[in-house]
Amino acid sequence: MIPETSVLLTDLYQLTMLQTYHTEGMQETAVFDLFARRLPPERGFLLAAGLEQALDYLENLHFTPEELDWLAGCGRFDSRFVDSLAKFRFTGTVHALPEGTVFFANEPILRVTAPLPQAQLVESRLINLIHYQTLIASKAARCALAAPGKLLVDFGLRRAHGAEAGLLAARAAYLAGFGGTATVLAGMRFGIPLFGTMAHSLIQAHDCEETAFEHFAAAQPSNVVLLLDTYDTEAAARKLIPLAARLQARGIVIKGVRIDSGDLAEHTRRVRHILDEGGLDRITIFASGDLDEYRLQSLLAEGAPIDGFGIGTRLDASTDAPTLELVYKLQEYAGRPRRKRSEGKATWPGRKQVYRRLTTDGTFAEDYLGLETSPQPGEPLLRPVMLDGKRLSLESLDTVRQRVRTQLAALPPALRANQTVPTYPVSIAPELHELTDQLDREVH
Amino acid sequence: MIPETSVLLTDLYQLTMLQTYHTEGMQETAVFDLFARRLPPERGFLLAAGLEQALDYLENLHFTPEELDWLAGCGRFDSRFVDSLAKFRFTGTVHALPEGTVFFANEPILRVTAPLPQAQLVESRLINLIHYQTLIASKAARCALAAPGKLLVDFGLRRAHGAEAGLLAARAAYLAGFGGTATVLAGMRFGIPLFGTMAHSLIQAHDCEETAFEHFAAAQPSNVVLLLDTYDTEAAARKLIPLAARLQARGIVIKGVRIDSGDLAEHTRRVRHILDEGGLDRITIFASGDLDEYRLQSLLAEGAPIDGFGIGTRLDASTDAPTLELVYKLQEYAGRPRRKRSEGKATWPGRKQVYRRLTTDGTFAEDYLGLETSPQPGEPLLRPVMLDGKRLSLESLDTVRQRVRTQLAALPPALRANQTVPTYPVSIAPELHELTDQLDREVH
Repeated sequence: MIPETSVLLTDLYQLTMLQTYHTEGMQETAVFDLFARRLPPERGFLLAAGLEQALDYLENLHFTPEELDWLAGCGRFDSRFVDSLAKFRFTGTVHALPEGTVFFANEPILRVTAPLPQAQLVESRLINLIHYQTLIASKAARCALAAPGKLLVDFGLRRAHGAEAGLLAARAAYLAGFGGTATVLAGMRFGIPLFGTMAHSLIQAHDCEETAFEHFAAAQPSNVVLLLDTYDTEAAARKLIPLAARLQARGIVIKGVRIDSGDLAEHTRRVRHILDEGGLDRITIFASGDLDEYRLQSLLAEGAPIDGFGIGTRLDASTDAPTLELVYKLQEYAGRPRRKRSEGKATWPGRKQVYRRLTTDGTFAEDYLGLETSPQPGEPLLRPVMLDGKRLSLESLDTVRQRVRTQLAALPPALRANQTVPTYPVSIAPELHELTDQLDREVH
Repeated sequence: MIPETSVLLTDLYQLTMLQTYHTEGMQETAVFDLFARRLPPERGFLLAAGLEQALDYLENLHFTPEELDWLAGCGRFDSRFVDSLAKFRFTGTVHALPEGTVFFANEPILRVTAPLPQAQLVESRLINLIHYQTLIASKAARCALAAPGKLLVDFGLRRAHGAEAGLLAARAAYLAGFGGTATVLAGMRFGIPLFGTMAHSLIQAHDCEETAFEHFAAAQPSNVVLLLDTYDTEAAARKLIPLAARLQARGIVIKGVRIDSGDLAEHTRRVRHILDEGGLDRITIFASGDLDEYRLQSLLAEGAPIDGFGIGTRLDASTDAPTLELVYKLQEYAGRPRRKRSEGKATWPGRKQVYRRLTTDGTFAEDYLGLETSPQPGEPLLRPVMLDGKRLSLESLDTVRQRVRTQLAALPPALRANQTVPTYPVSIAPELHELTDQLDREVH
């Protein structure tokens, strides 16, 4: 099942620490923040995604009898501790940025408030779930910004890192502005629109390319998109002129063509010309093959007559920035702020809030990272989404898609660019500096 | 469940093509090869992995009633075609390189021989499964070559791309020479050795670092590995001298320490010195934090006194080369060789075999890609692994690990290096050139 629900999808040290907390009776309330330590140099902003799956995970968290048996028999844990896990549930509170919200470095995008063992155990999988969809939604948003008005389709399942990545990439790309995906399971599970054409193998399995086109069109008359580049792209385009006439006589219309190799700008121009000359100017051209936001931008800048793009490998693996430095850090325990001071990895303590300030025309002006107890001007971004282990509401993908459109429209123009961009201003409240200094004097 | 088993984890075009094959009665035998079009510039060799999960997938492939209902209701497929899928099973034959075999560009690592619809439908998920584990095993082998004799542990779950990636990265890294993983589920499902220490949050949740160490040691007396860099790494190391004496009085031994931030070469040298001076020379030092084969090599070249490494994000996402150009292409249908001629993506037709030739001392000398019908000198690498839909045998991870050790020892020294390496010679048989030319004259 995707997403995977096993509670043992966690790091061993979480269980080791839980045994310590069990032995020491450390069950008081902990507060953890999930945030990006810094943005990859290739990213000017990130788009929060994956909250729905994270809340599913928290709501369903439990140890199965089989898992408890395995833990009891693995020789690492004492039996009273393992017995105590039979009743383990997540009963905490979660605040988060709604999916589709733009965010920047050091801003908490999710905050867990729960008894220490509960808040600790969920670290590995919470990061895993939020990290991947945030990574892909952020990449997909860049593609959408690079190709306004074009149909973008996720083609990445085959080189996504495993099944869950393939399925959740389809969701993340769709919420960030893609038109749909080729991954069938994403259509069934999430209701995401599906797109698909044909592979080269269908052409190759026939002795004649034109026969292959005709067979395919007859079997799928409502969605005829033909792949042109198995042998010779322009020769294939010329075959469509007589074929279109024959198909029309049977009531079948060729909707589009796809080109998947070679110089896409050059081939699409030539194919557009061939089709237009042959009276087939309503056939759309779809391009694929090693595409990403950089290639989209340059193809469109060259004036390539492309109506839609299939974006696969470089989207689903976010190849120019394949990971984000998302971390989950303890900020408070038993009513007292906490922080780490590790070199290059120090954190801000306490319960925080992000306040977003806009210019008069609605563009993002500045974010302010402060303490929740000192409200500030601007819109507070963290909202309660789970109370006592129960989720408060569920947003539709349409609602999230609408939010993304609004958010991307409010980005300062420099942050929308593909190229390396200036850092968005996130101010740190003076109270946070004070709290940090005070804490550093006390903790040894 | 991991791996995911749904047959709808595929691209829409596979089903679209299957409907065409159903309509046209195209059910004859197809032969598809899975191979790497080229290696990333950062890789001199790849290590085949993921075959076990691929064969699991093929053996269990079927449409559930719920999936058939969804397909029937989605408006894309005719009802006779959907009805025909109820009986769909994979009944074909598979040849493959055993897991843990080194391979290079253009060499088939898996060949499927099955009725065309069966061989076609499985493309997306077969690539997805083989691609990811091959990617990670290849990266892990490079880490093992960079740090001979050191304990390497997979720490990557949290930033792996989803649950399945996290779990299968643990397997791929282990078969390639890692000592184990932190991912608990990989211990339960695959019997992979588990390793784990503590997080900074355990230290932070206490008001005093030394008390945190002592509580942790008392709760886990058999596996005491203490994390030193929450506040001040060297100060924490100095606290171990009195602590070790107190713990020893209770029969508890500190096994190791972990350092996760800052200049690891410098900190590990200082900590080693502090521990040795304090008579704690048997405590081992484990390092983690943004590590990969390049960092391992430079830390060891600097003489950093590190006994083991936790390798996370950069392993599980293979960040320097996050995808491979693995493809699955039709090479024969209905007894006739096939190929595509797309620019930059042309393929070799026919049923092929890879022959590996060794020097007299057992080092890899050259591979020869020929037709199966013309046996050649050298060891044929593709072996039958599934017949009529039934797997022929199952290898233990220990067998695969042993193979990897043998294979890596036989690599030409230049190919073991981390840096960009010369291309390993793979010769193409003259018969393959002839078959290709002949085919290009016939197919239009």
